[in-house]
Amino acid sequence: MNVTDADLPAGAAPLRVAVLGCGVVGTEVVTLLTDQADDFAARVGRPIELVGVAVRRLNKVRPGIDTGLLTVDADALVRRDDVDVVVELIGGIEPARTLILTAMEHGASVVTANKALLAEDGTTLYAAAEKAGVDLYFEAAVAGAIPIVRPLRESLVGDEITSVIGIVNGTTNYILDKMDSEGSGFDETLEEAQQLGYAEADPTADIEGFDAAAKAAILSSLAFHSRVSGADVYREGITDVTSGDIASAAEMGCVVKLLAICALTEPAELADGSPGERAVSVRVHPAMIPRSHPLATVRGPYNAVFVESRAAGRLMFTGPGAGGPPTASAVLGDLVTVCRNRVRGAAGPGESSYAQRKVSPIGEVVTRYHLSLDVADVAGVLATIAGVFSDYGVSIQTVRQQGRDGDARLVIVTHRATDAALSATVEALHRLDVVNEVTSVMRVEGE
Amino acid sequence: MNVTDADLPAGAAPLRVAVLGCGVVGTEVVTLLTDQADDFAARVGRPIELVGVAVRRLNKVRPGIDTGLLTVDADALVRRDDVDVVVELIGGIEPARTLILTAMEHGASVVTANKALLAEDGTTLYAAAEKAGVDLYFEAAVAGAIPIVRPLRESLVGDEITSVIGIVNGTTNYILDKMDSEGSGFDETLEEAQQLGYAEADPTADIEGFDAAAKAAILSSLAFHSRVSGADVYREGITDVTSGDIASAAEMGCVVKLLAICALTEPAELADGSPGERAVSVRVHPAMIPRSHPLATVRGPYNAVFVESRAAGRLMFTGPGAGGPPTASAVLGDLVTVCRNRVRGAAGPGESSYAQRKVSPIGEVVTRYHLSLDVADVAGVLATIAGVFSDYGVSIQTVRQQGRDGDARLVIVTHRATDAALSATVEALHRLDVVNEVTSVMRVEGE
Repeated sequence: MNVTDADLPAGAAPLRVAVLGCGVVGTEVVTLLTDQADDFAARVGRPIELVGVAVRRLNKVRPGIDTGLLTVDADALVRRDDVDVVVELIGGIEPARTLILTAMEHGASVVTANKALLAEDGTTLYAAAEKAGVDLYFEAAVAGAIPIVRPLRESLVGDEITSVIGIVNGTTNYILDKMDSEGSGFDETLEEAQQLGYAEADPTADIEGFDAAAKAAILSSLAFHSRVSGADVYREGITDVTSGDIASAAEMGCVVKLLAICALTEPAELADGSPGERAVSVRVHPAMIPRSHPLATVRGPYNAVFVESRAAGRLMFTGPGAGGPPTASAVLGDLVTVCRNRVRGAAGPGESSYAQRKVSPIGEVVTRYHLSLDVADVAGVLATIAGVFSDYGVSIQTVRQQGRDGDARLVIVTHRATDAALSATVEALHRLDVVNEVTSVMRVEGE
Repeated sequence: MNVTDADLPAGAAPLRVAVLGCGVVGTEVVTLLTDQADDFAARVGRPIELVGVAVRRLNKVRPGIDTGLLTVDADALVRRDDVDVVVELIGGIEPARTLILTAMEHGASVVTANKALLAEDGTTLYAAAEKAGVDLYFEAAVAGAIPIVRPLRESLVGDEITSVIGIVNGTTNYILDKMDSEGSGFDETLEEAQQLGYAEADPTADIEGFDAAAKAAILSSLAFHSRVSGADVYREGITDVTSGDIASAAEMGCVVKLLAICALTEPAELADGSPGERAVSVRVHPAMIPRSHPLATVRGPYNAVFVESRAAGRLMFTGPGAGGPPTASAVLGDLVTVCRNRVRGAAGPGESSYAQRKVSPIGEVVTRYHLSLDVADVAGVLATIAGVFSDYGVSIQTVRQQGRDGDARLVIVTHRATDAALSATVEALHRLDVVNEVTSVMRVEGE
């Protein structure tokens, strides 16, 4: 497997690559590109030449990185007209967006792992790529090393995807999994995750669901050929999940997971009786799922994406959702593809948003709910409470009552109901004298 | 989501598609192409026009298929110069190969599900596609609807894949799973599978491992950038798997699965002490794997592929491995991609065989083994048998002895040893007077 220059086309000019950002992922990308240069050359058909790595600080120690490549002037790097591909690993909205757009204007294809930017303004990036005739690839933006962007964008593009449900944030899955297996509370588990490096010092983006919401927006856009931005995604984090919720879930054979749910809705009936257009429901929230569901088996910081489609049926993709090497694998797969496209004069897929599906408001979303109530232990309380559910058209599937010194705990699981009906029910329950507290409300999915 | 002609580029000429074969998959492909014509047009950027469907018999009833499209003259169909894409769903070597090559010569890109042909002669197909400047796509050839060809060919192309282990034959997985859950024997389970349509009337290709071996050849070629044909694959079917083997597996916390194993071997040390080239081990055989292994959870006719790579780590892809709609999903994903390439003047990836890795002979493959022996229940028998293992350098991990009326059963699990050493050990055991019979030998994988 010794690749010599003789194996490559005579005089094959190298493809020139610039990397923006040299953190955990960037370092891995640069190192692998250097270590396995022969393999990359053979796979692309031409050598890959790294021409620059934009960093914030030049004086940081970076073992294995040629310091001659480092520059603090990212802008100058993306303005070079001789760069074929820019790999953006800075993250966040600015300066990443401006740098990507400038790179494209100067003829470079772009590989990025920037989920926040794609979720906020993917359309601008697609349009710039289209205009410049360059590629935009972003496999690493969702679920780390797991190939999910390309399967949705290409493998399943001849099928009708009906839902994509993902565990796409490793930090929250690690925390919820620990709480489930050890019976520990949220705060202590978060602290432990921070000590082990599974959660960041500022964990907001992960535990409040912002990271998963960005990924849900990207997945929905691809799966449903529509434009869905991060702001369209209904979002609840896991900070309110208690050990009591997890115990309740266990009692009904479920686990709690933070899910990114992207689904085609059932078509509403129009005035003339015909079915209306199907919309898209996109939401991120903790939910109880049965332990028998494939997603329930996803442990620790792993990610998984469960896809249902009309013809293919049920598919699941599992793997490491984060970390330097896995993310670098996804980035480098895109880099080779983009370089191959350059060599062959080809172009990858552009935006596909023709279906223009609407995002349904959360109030219209239909699912099942698990509620825990602290109620007065008096005669007729169940009848009163059941009456409230009935008033709002929410049908109860099971009730479990546990008495405790004059007070009682009611655990209620509903049949499928709209979020609006359930919210109205909960508000009305709060107003009842016999209800001391609605201690938790959680969706039940995957059945 | 009403796509009107106005959404497409003015005067966009349709892409012309011919389908060869109209069995279960072909019927599904033709039906979906017709039913969802608007979606396909929007996703490709131009309408797709079905120009002909080659069948063996014109007079068969085919609900939903426009009889005006049917022809028995496949050769004339692939010789048409106005066909953009030929979808080959006939299967087998001939006439499929000649038809594909003729189609390419006449400028058509090809989408095929033909694993047997790709495993036997993929190189010829790749070369013809390269020469004609057309695409060759075959996602449906391995693991039905599960996107695995594209992830290996593109998503993971920047990584070093070290192993691919698949459950890639639904018939055998269904049979082994039933034998495991019901304790039934092979013959009765096969018969039941045939009645339910999970096994064919002539089940040879499935139960003898030929189907899985073809898929292993395709997976290895892609994963290791080398040429591996079906003939290179070591192959054992499941016809000798007994309910006793499955019970033995269960006793050690394992299940029996028919695995397609494609792995980079450890580099042998050369005379000068430097590491030699890594070869490829490609084999299909029943094996015991721990119930905790992700592949152990794959039930019934489902397929799964477990990939390990240097940077990405462990990935798993699961889904329906066969059936009309799932296979059609894979075919249609390829069809849209190939059509998009036509519209954009692009080309998909060609053959990547630069690494030219050798396939190691089965004798050099290293794994663990589970053996059951019927032995005479006399003093010193274990010492005698252990001596034979020791003579051939095979280290024993555990021995379990079960006495029965003067005879005894020994269950031995070895440490890792070469297949050659294990085979020599088994031969020597056969020659021992104290060994009545070597009742089974099975590999233990996934640990």
